[in-house]
Amino acid sequence: RIMRPDDANVAGNVHGGTILKMIEEAGAIISTRHCNSQAGEACVAALARVERTDFLSPVCIGEVANVSAEITYTSRHSVEVQVNVMSENILTGAKKVTNKATLWYVPLSLKNVNKVLEVPPIQYARKEQEDEGKKRYEEQKLDRLETKQRNGDMIFPVINPEPHTVGYSQSSLIHLVGPSDCTLLGFVHGGVTMKLMDEVAGIVAARHCKTNIVTASVDAINFHKKIKKGSVITISGRMTFTSNKSMEIEVFVDADPFVDEPQERYRAVSAFFTYVSLSKEGKPLPVPQLLTETEDEKRRFEEGKGRYLQTKAKRQAQMQQAARQ
Amino acid sequence: RIMRPDDANVAGNVHGGTILKMIEEAGAIISTRHCNSQAGEACVAALARVERTDFLSPVCIGEVANVSAEITYTSRHSVEVQVNVMSENILTGAKKVTNKATLWYVPLSLKNVNKVLEVPPIQYARKEQEDEGKKRYEEQKLDRLETKQRNGDMIFPVINPEPHTVGYSQSSLIHLVGPSDCTLLGFVHGGVTMKLMDEVAGIVAARHCKTNIVTASVDAINFHKKIKKGSVITISGRMTFTSNKSMEIEVFVDADPFVDEPQERYRAVSAFFTYVSLSKEGKPLPVPQLLTETEDEKRRFEEGKGRYLQTKAKRQAQMQQAARQ
Amino acid sequence: RIMRPDDANVAGNVHGGTILKMIEEAGAIISTRHCNSQAGEACVAALARVERTDFLSPVCIGEVANVSAEITYTSRHSVEVQVNVMSENILTGAKKVTNKATLWYVPLSLKNVNKVLEVPPIQYARKEQEDEGKKRYEEQKLDRLETKQRNGDMIFPVINPEPHTVGYSQSSLIHLVGPSDCTLLGFVHGGVTMKLMDEVAGIVAARHCKTNIVTASVDAINFHKKIKKGSVITISGRMTFTSNKSMEIEVFVDADPFVDEPQERYRAVSAFFTYVSLSKEGKPLPVPQLLTETEDEKRRFEEGKGRYLQTKAKRQAQMQQAARQ
Repeated sequence: RIMRPDDANVAGNVHGGTILKMIEEAGAIISTRHCNSQAGEACVAALARVERTDFLSPVCIGEVANVSAEITYTSRHSVEVQVNVMSENILTGAKKVTNKATLWYVPLSLKNVNKVLEVPPIQYARKEQEDEGKKRYEEQKLDRLETKQRNGDMIFPVINPEPHTVGYSQSSLIHLVGPSDCTLLGFVHGGVTMKLMDEVAGIVAARHCKTNIVTASVDAINFHKKIKKGSVITISGRMTFTSNKSMEIEVFVDADPFVDEPQERYRAVSAFFTYVSLSKEGKPLPVPQLLTETEDEKRRFEEGKGRYLQTKAKRQAQMQQAARQ
Repeated sequence: RIMRPDDANVAGNVHGGTILKMIEEAGAIISTRHCNSQAGEACVAALARVERTDFLSPVCIGEVANVSAEITYTSRHSVEVQVNVMSENILTGAKKVTNKATLWYVPLSLKNVNKVLEVPPIQYARKEQEDEGKKRYEEQKLDRLETKQRNGDMIFPVINPEPHTVGYSQSSLIHLVGPSDCTLLGFVHGGVTMKLMDEVAGIVAARHCKTNIVTASVDAINFHKKIKKGSVITISGRMTFTSNKSMEIEVFVDADPFVDEPQERYRAVSAFFTYVSLSKEGKPLPVPQLLTETEDEKRRFEEGKGRYLQTKAKRQAQMQQAARQ
Repeated sequence: RIMRPDDANVAGNVHGGTILKMIEEAGAIISTRHCNSQAGEACVAALARVERTDFLSPVCIGEVANVSAEITYTSRHSVEVQVNVMSENILTGAKKVTNKATLWYVPLSLKNVNKVLEVPPIQYARKEQEDEGKKRYEEQKLDRLETKQRNGDMIFPVINPEPHTVGYSQSSLIHLVGPSDCTLLGFVHGGVTMKLMDEVAGIVAARHCKTNIVTASVDAINFHKKIKKGSVITISGRMTFTSNKSMEIEVFVDADPFVDEPQERYRAVSAFFTYVSLSKEGKPLPVPQLLTETEDEKRRFEEGKGRYLQTKAKRQAQMQQAARQ
């Protein structure tokens, strides 16, 4: 679809959240179709996890985003979908890879939303494909368990914060979940949540560096709990780490099912977004260093540094491998 | 309502699809109101057909579109609505006719969506008005039967197409039907479908000529089958014909009611859109000729040429008639 | 236009904010058209104030909202517009007055947004109309000056608040101002701001009473300062007063023009919204009393009580007057 002014920031760069929302819509369609391809109980595929994804090049207003999706692995109860996004300037014909994402879906029964159905198996061209898929499946399963524990954390407001401290840029947004945000089952689309998360993370980044910023990458995101239509969701973001040219922002989503529900507020999703600051000519700018004050802030900064160095090392290894081939 | 940046292309011209959507909303309101004006079963008017319409002048961001609708004929089971759109520059006060459209609606029972109700007859000021309306009614009925047969065609992707071939510009878009896309009966508004069709046709036209393009006219559109909430619709477009200064694009809408329905994917709508290419000053530009390769493409080109020449002849006849009066 | 699921809450009642946005769009069109009706510098009418308005009956999904606007007074630099909203059930033909609102607009030059232009005078049918209009003009001018002073107040977050305290339900929302939110001058439409204010106030009300709530009335709203495209706005709401069956919520809008602007965050708008709680059958429910803790909260509760009693007395006087006539 054509990118519109409302999809982009003032500099004309399309929000990462808009791209994430399109990716998720494609993934939900292909996996729901697959899970209903055999006779049996009707179901809707619900997003369980998005693997880490890098935004390789910015998309601009007026360009066309082409999204293609393919099912690459099925376990008994989950589907792995690989989605590719290409941006095309239809005036010049130039095409660029924007990003590639891997998403995991779980089929939920249309009659009983708490029942997970079985997934029809796919055929693999080669045995290795199945083995590699299984390995990815085991890895993500482990990672999902781990993040469940990290989830107790909260963001507290700070009165009169100093510039470049954590409290100075932290932000939160509330959103009333409307009908268009939801699947046929009446639960929020994962893509809608990711778009709001990117919006908050972008505001945190812009408040910190007061320049034009763009999403560089999103860490793996796990969707622990469903969010029902009519809920109020609070999306909060705080900066955790800065390198010379990037900022890492942690984002939490809390849901408050406050109308005729006895349930308490709960943590539905959390993730790390990485942003870079760009000059008017689209060149990366240096980022002011984050000032950490409390022990927790210092610890989170070190953890962010760890993730940053790990990603950097992984990318260098990939480049060396590519160079050898 | 005031035209916003999201309603328009990068050059500030409002999309034909936005106008079509407003026209259809006005038509749906007036015909639903009329069909419920007598005591009896409540109903919702569903769009069955839009007659060919020309876009006489482009509308720009910031202008106000005034839509007026009038019922001009009723048969036993259908309503003809004439809609006029004027664009008004509220800064200068200048008003221009944007387009006039004729729409046919059918009242469907609110209790049983497959039941077509009777339409309360309208009063005609003169007997001739009724006779002319009846003639239009018979003509459109015939035409609707004809297009039903043409509908089996499909669009297949082409690998590495040459510039200006049919495969080079063909495009498709997938949309998940949400609640706000639908009427009270839970079926997609005709206007929503037309807006998406115009979006795809616009991408095809821009890919072909790499310039700023605007909708010049829409051929009669027949809505054969309803599309239900929760369906996935695929809108595909391919170029069929080019004259020196215009492009004809055929657009198909296929619906996939993929959850809780045993039904197969089906063709819901098809239509021809005509686009022109504009320079930065808003002057029409020459269009690169469409390169046809297969027999089918050559046949469709000839058919498109037939429609083009027929429209041209009709327009000249109207102008001569106007000049004589 | 037809009311859609996205315009309404889960019980199917259209948000007061959606109605306010439509009212403001109608007011902006008619006043911009009037201010440009004489030769001279082109201008855009900017909303300066909305008078208190009551929502007389709820609007539902599928109904059509008819908005009509009329200019009722002009001073040298401002225009008074009276807008009426009728909701129409097009299935039964039933029409109800939804609300009546009075808005004040000021014409800003298209070339220089800080220049207020002169308004072409309107003709009055009777001299009394002009005199009454002048009285309304003087009154609103006075009131605008008064609220300017109240504007220094801030909302501070509370950790672990008790149910039914002020801290328990207070909420805030951040929004990045996009192109479609803005007028031709690049400043936020007053209607967009009011819709967001209603959204926050509604969340505060729902958090307090955990039931389905609807907007009952909006106090006069003054728009002190313009908000520019690309700004981040924070809309905060806190409950100030409860009667047996209504809740008063104060809402602030703060703007943060953080991209390439040296300006500080500033208070752009503030207002009081009144909500009622409804049962599933649409009957008013009793509201839990607001628990006030600090001196400021107690003072605001008493002030809210004053406004509540004043409104009640005014309404009784109007009903007695109506009964006498």
